[in-house]
Amino acid sequence: MAIDLSYPPEVQRLADRTRGFVRDRVLPIEDAHDGDITAAGGDALRKDLQHAAREAGVFTPHAPTEYGGHGLGMVNRAPIFEEAGYSLFGPTALNIAAPDEGNVHMLAHIADPEQKQQFLAPLARGEVRSAFAMTEPAPGAGSDPSALTTRAVRAEGGWRINGHKWFITGADGAGFFIIMARTSGEPGDRGGATMFLAPAETPGIRVGRHIDTLDRSMLGGHCEVFFDDVLVPDSAVLGAVDRGFEYAQVRLGPARMTHVMRWLGAARRGHDVAVARVAERRGFGSRLGDLGMIQQMIADNEIDIAATRALLTRACWELDLGEPAANATSIAKTYAAEAIFRIIDRSMQMCGGLGVSADLPLARLSREVRPFRIYDGPSEVHRWAIAKRAVSAARRAQQDMK
Amino acid sequence: MAIDLSYPPEVQRLADRTRGFVRDRVLPIEDAHDGDITAAGGDALRKDLQHAAREAGVFTPHAPTEYGGHGLGMVNRAPIFEEAGYSLFGPTALNIAAPDEGNVHMLAHIADPEQKQQFLAPLARGEVRSAFAMTEPAPGAGSDPSALTTRAVRAEGGWRINGHKWFITGADGAGFFIIMARTSGEPGDRGGATMFLAPAETPGIRVGRHIDTLDRSMLGGHCEVFFDDVLVPDSAVLGAVDRGFEYAQVRLGPARMTHVMRWLGAARRGHDVAVARVAERRGFGSRLGDLGMIQQMIADNEIDIAATRALLTRACWELDLGEPAANATSIAKTYAAEAIFRIIDRSMQMCGGLGVSADLPLARLSREVRPFRIYDGPSEVHRWAIAKRAVSAARRAQQDMK
Amino acid sequence: MAIDLSYPPEVQRLADRTRGFVRDRVLPIEDAHDGDITAAGGDALRKDLQHAAREAGVFTPHAPTEYGGHGLGMVNRAPIFEEAGYSLFGPTALNIAAPDEGNVHMLAHIADPEQKQQFLAPLARGEVRSAFAMTEPAPGAGSDPSALTTRAVRAEGGWRINGHKWFITGADGAGFFIIMARTSGEPGDRGGATMFLAPAETPGIRVGRHIDTLDRSMLGGHCEVFFDDVLVPDSAVLGAVDRGFEYAQVRLGPARMTHVMRWLGAARRGHDVAVARVAERRGFGSRLGDLGMIQQMIADNEIDIAATRALLTRACWELDLGEPAANATSIAKTYAAEAIFRIIDRSMQMCGGLGVSADLPLARLSREVRPFRIYDGPSEVHRWAIAKRAVSAARRAQQDMK
Amino acid sequence: MAIDLSYPPEVQRLADRTRGFVRDRVLPIEDAHDGDITAAGGDALRKDLQHAAREAGVFTPHAPTEYGGHGLGMVNRAPIFEEAGYSLFGPTALNIAAPDEGNVHMLAHIADPEQKQQFLAPLARGEVRSAFAMTEPAPGAGSDPSALTTRAVRAEGGWRINGHKWFITGADGAGFFIIMARTSGEPGDRGGATMFLAPAETPGIRVGRHIDTLDRSMLGGHCEVFFDDVLVPDSAVLGAVDRGFEYAQVRLGPARMTHVMRWLGAARRGHDVAVARVAERRGFGSRLGDLGMIQQMIADNEIDIAATRALLTRACWELDLGEPAANATSIAKTYAAEAIFRIIDRSMQMCGGLGVSADLPLARLSREVRPFRIYDGPSEVHRWAIAKRAVSAARRAQQDMK
Repeated sequence: MAIDLSYPPEVQRLADRTRGFVRDRVLPIEDAHDGDITAAGGDALRKDLQHAAREAGVFTPHAPTEYGGHGLGMVNRAPIFEEAGYSLFGPTALNIAAPDEGNVHMLAHIADPEQKQQFLAPLARGEVRSAFAMTEPAPGAGSDPSALTTRAVRAEGGWRINGHKWFITGADGAGFFIIMARTSGEPGDRGGATMFLAPAETPGIRVGRHIDTLDRSMLGGHCEVFFDDVLVPDSAVLGAVDRGFEYAQVRLGPARMTHVMRWLGAARRGHDVAVARVAERRGFGSRLGDLGMIQQMIADNEIDIAATRALLTRACWELDLGEPAANATSIAKTYAAEAIFRIIDRSMQMCGGLGVSADLPLARLSREVRPFRIYDGPSEVHRWAIAKRAVSAARRAQQDMK
Repeated sequence: MAIDLSYPPEVQRLADRTRGFVRDRVLPIEDAHDGDITAAGGDALRKDLQHAAREAGVFTPHAPTEYGGHGLGMVNRAPIFEEAGYSLFGPTALNIAAPDEGNVHMLAHIADPEQKQQFLAPLARGEVRSAFAMTEPAPGAGSDPSALTTRAVRAEGGWRINGHKWFITGADGAGFFIIMARTSGEPGDRGGATMFLAPAETPGIRVGRHIDTLDRSMLGGHCEVFFDDVLVPDSAVLGAVDRGFEYAQVRLGPARMTHVMRWLGAARRGHDVAVARVAERRGFGSRLGDLGMIQQMIADNEIDIAATRALLTRACWELDLGEPAANATSIAKTYAAEAIFRIIDRSMQMCGGLGVSADLPLARLSREVRPFRIYDGPSEVHRWAIAKRAVSAARRAQQDMK
Repeated sequence: MAIDLSYPPEVQRLADRTRGFVRDRVLPIEDAHDGDITAAGGDALRKDLQHAAREAGVFTPHAPTEYGGHGLGMVNRAPIFEEAGYSLFGPTALNIAAPDEGNVHMLAHIADPEQKQQFLAPLARGEVRSAFAMTEPAPGAGSDPSALTTRAVRAEGGWRINGHKWFITGADGAGFFIIMARTSGEPGDRGGATMFLAPAETPGIRVGRHIDTLDRSMLGGHCEVFFDDVLVPDSAVLGAVDRGFEYAQVRLGPARMTHVMRWLGAARRGHDVAVARVAERRGFGSRLGDLGMIQQMIADNEIDIAATRALLTRACWELDLGEPAANATSIAKTYAAEAIFRIIDRSMQMCGGLGVSADLPLARLSREVRPFRIYDGPSEVHRWAIAKRAVSAARRAQQDMK
Repeated sequence: MAIDLSYPPEVQRLADRTRGFVRDRVLPIEDAHDGDITAAGGDALRKDLQHAAREAGVFTPHAPTEYGGHGLGMVNRAPIFEEAGYSLFGPTALNIAAPDEGNVHMLAHIADPEQKQQFLAPLARGEVRSAFAMTEPAPGAGSDPSALTTRAVRAEGGWRINGHKWFITGADGAGFFIIMARTSGEPGDRGGATMFLAPAETPGIRVGRHIDTLDRSMLGGHCEVFFDDVLVPDSAVLGAVDRGFEYAQVRLGPARMTHVMRWLGAARRGHDVAVARVAERRGFGSRLGDLGMIQQMIADNEIDIAATRALLTRACWELDLGEPAANATSIAKTYAAEAIFRIIDRSMQMCGGLGVSADLPLARLSREVRPFRIYDGPSEVHRWAIAKRAVSAARRAQQDMK
């Protein structure tokens, strides 16, 4: 045991390969369509890019090797996912976009062999997409998951699910859904949820409108989804009944971190675009990049990138140890979401009028990264959780002294 | 002479009337089209709204009374423009949108009687729109206007203009252009510019593409404009030859402040939407608006609104005294652009996922207000100017003591 | 009625006179003793300076003219108090330091003729100092005044007071105390407080230690004070029984604003010192004041000064109209306390190692201004109050629409 | 090679032992003297504490084992130094206070055997203190070391040194000085400096006044030092002639990081004090630590602590690899200095009036940590260096593409 911050050579090589693949094959398509993945081809584009990624040897790095992946743990995913995130379409190309990537992670941990065969295998291979149906409109499960209102009740040979979800990423076109439903207790109770696996064609599942959000690089959109008397067999239960909130934590911690990895790549791209520009443009009798106020923005970006990466490494290392890492992932997610937003915002500012135009990718990136301060837990909810732990620890210490 | 912060009753009444007009007639149209003015009807919509504004007695409040306006000075424009800005379409409805409003202001100060007749009168009546053609792509006039490269050279009976402009707001569909061109000196020289008035149909004027920017509520877009051997008569000169930079200052100081007024209205709307929501929604066992972190965002919004308004009043008061008010307008513009951005950003954050969706107007507003930290002088350029004055004053004081 | 931001000529002249007086007579003494008012002479210094101020015609500008003052309202106090605050000892010299200044203000509004004769007159003339005994150690009255635990109970011909106060500014050496004590109800109740006037020599009043705080320019320190069976006659009641909390509001709103005025002067001095220095010092091949990051700090200081002054004017104008101005004073106080802190902090930073040394007044000023973000209501309490009003207003609006 | 963030067990044990030692033996003395090391006993206190540290097995952890130390590299110093820094007197107790700790580090790397015997050995054993004489008053070497004006010129059998230094930490009472003097070139040149070792009793060395700064926990103060015809032999040259600036870098990178380690301990203490307090105090009908605005401050402190530690680990790891790590140490130092300041500032704010008093250690800590944003390179200079590297890299990349 001793501090070491170096990646294994094979991880470093995979990162380099990913960088080249994204630069040569993915970025040009993103730029040609201003980051609108539907306009760029949607699922057809996805299949083309994933084929290319497979050929380049960079496909599905996080999936277990038995499903064709590279079997990387959280720590080693970071540099790969960051390189993929350098383009908004990169994660889709590598099959590591949300929510599929998190679903692969969770199914690999929780699903039984049949479920792995039916759901995980085709997902890891990129044959289908998936959706994780948890969030509900007010007063249902939002920042506070315990408010869950969707219900699953016992039916012959299985369960009958009714409920209304929204902001379900990737729902339009998903091959199957992981549905979070209440199997006991009442909205507000901290337990009583169960996860169910259901193919998209299951009767009673209806995908509604795409919610029109600032971001538009998520394939399948953020949709409303309705479950009307959806009947699923007992074998659809993922893991055990009533343990859904626990499993959600299994998914959420890592999923927060992979979001950070991808958006960090996007932030680095924004920064690179801005620095390249001010390194050559002139104004006020100077190269712009030599003006103090511009230098301050550049340095603050560098600091924000370094701190995000360092906090991410820490949280991933804890996760790889098998710890829940709730505090470390909350800290890394909160810092990262705000830092990434600042990085893109400063990069726009450095580029002036062009920065807010589609002639550069910065305005596009600004729309994409803003919601991350809200998605996967608003900064305020993470801060509340961090503070609660600190205060509880202080109170325990005071009790001990008495 | 004594401090007084009350508006004359007739101004207050006009503000109230404007508030009601915007709420009842304008906001519903904005919301139905997510703030996209072209989608909402473009110039046809403009004419309808302006007709309604005329009937409501709130039309063109800033124009001289002889042109059908209310003849308000800068100080008294503030509450009216703020009410108009409460909707993104409000300024268009009242005929006080950029750039027409600033052009009316400048023409009223500088144009000769014939020019007023030909250009100011129809503009004040809303019969035409206009454009102010100053900004150029790098390495031309941008944040640093002295880099002006567009040239006007003497020709028989007038001038021949050649150049390339961009980010020319409202160019598409404008009835005439005010063209800033260099009549002496070289790019980098601080003098030597002249303003010309030219109908849009003048041969050689060509409006190019709309630059695709974050904002989309400006009628006529932000366009590229090309001047190829545009011939204008001597009577097209606005004011005197070679004094264009001076006149630009006449326009820019007030134009900055009217931008602040309008965007302050937009910020207030965003804040109102968010506060209304957290005042009724519940979560974490409490009304959201009673949670401390939400209260902090609300209070910071209130502080930012109050400070913006107070700095604006100060700068307008100096302008009404006939002063250039360069420092006061730089201070107010810089503070306001950043404060307004923060207000909308916090308002989005308070509303969670819904905040970044088109179900509320906040995401739309966030796109509209971000460029204001760059348009009309980036914050960095204003700070540079403010600091230069302070350092010069300190040096003069040191000289005086020697 | 029309917006006017100009001071009456006599106020402007008084401000100019104050500026000269402070520069020539007060600043040299402050600098010679690094702002330590006790080291500089304490009450003896006070008397000397007040004598000089009287001769210079700048003494006690806020007191009613019948007590020898200039009778200025809140709005017109601002420029005078700001000039006085340019030196930490300036307010003492002009007899407008806390808490005397606020006590003069309150006594002028609430005291009966005999009380005015006995307490207000000598205070306005600078013959005595005073203290306002409200704050108590936890769990008593602090940020939340309703927690008041000091009690006054009926006794023969008067009241018997018992309690323990702290952070009582100016207590050591005060000629009399204004004591806030509970005459009905229990700690936590929002009413039931009464104010009493008691000469310092009243049996049972004991001034304890000076609490050692960051600041040290307040004559008489911040002390603990004990009231042990203090007997006062009925004539000691200031105003009416049980209305103490209301009267405290009469005092607190204006007192907050005069704090802002004085500290704004201190902030301006810090800024002036820093700008003078970077205007002449060189480094990195440039005058320091021409480096972009320094320019940014200068500009941000200028913006913070302008915004503080503008918010202050607004709040004072409302107070002069006779309004409670609770929101406007909370906004101005919160913004000002944080802005003034930032101004001094940036000024230190601009001056490097020298900035944190006693060779310049900046380190001294940093210690003095920091507590203002806590004294007179911590920023968090003001923000809470501002937000509560905004949320309540939104709820009322929602009720009205139903 | 693989990411690992765990410390070796012996390092962890040393950290635990240090924690206990500081809590039981050092903190009580600091608190009894409000952090004033001279008042607490100065060098006599130092000797007592160092004796106790030796007995506790925690003395001089960074020194080579042949000089009685634990021989820890940079990465492993971090947790030990952080524990020591939990008290302002802790680093003195462990013999790892500035500047001795950095001087031990540099002498171990550069000194020849005789110099090690004469200077390093007694320093590592705590028998003497030392000073590093580099900084000069304007226009000499400050943030910009190349401005060095102190000169050493050839003399018979050695060198004659003349110059004026200031902000020389620990000079009063130091046993010897490491003197940075110009041996070739002119002020402004980037090379030409040499380091000399000189016992304090060398004729011509005179320690002047202590510069009165915000901080007061540094034994021997921050002094002015005068060198008047100081004659030193050739053997006094540390390393090679004219390579002083290079050696300064050897010292500065690690010295910045050990400053961060120590101040991080101080920040953690401030945070602990504040959290313990709000975890038990009540107000506004709640435990203070459950109020949202307090929770936000707590969470932001936790984030700042985590990010500082993570950036520090990264920079130390690069240093241990033998890299100059100029960028990583600039990033870590800049972030840390600002974060540590924020942490203490928020901790004060959480504790209200008590927070700015000597009843808690927070006001004391606030005075100590503020200068760190200036000492060891102001944040602005580090940002300038970070940005220059980024812009240069971007320009090289552009050249490569051409």
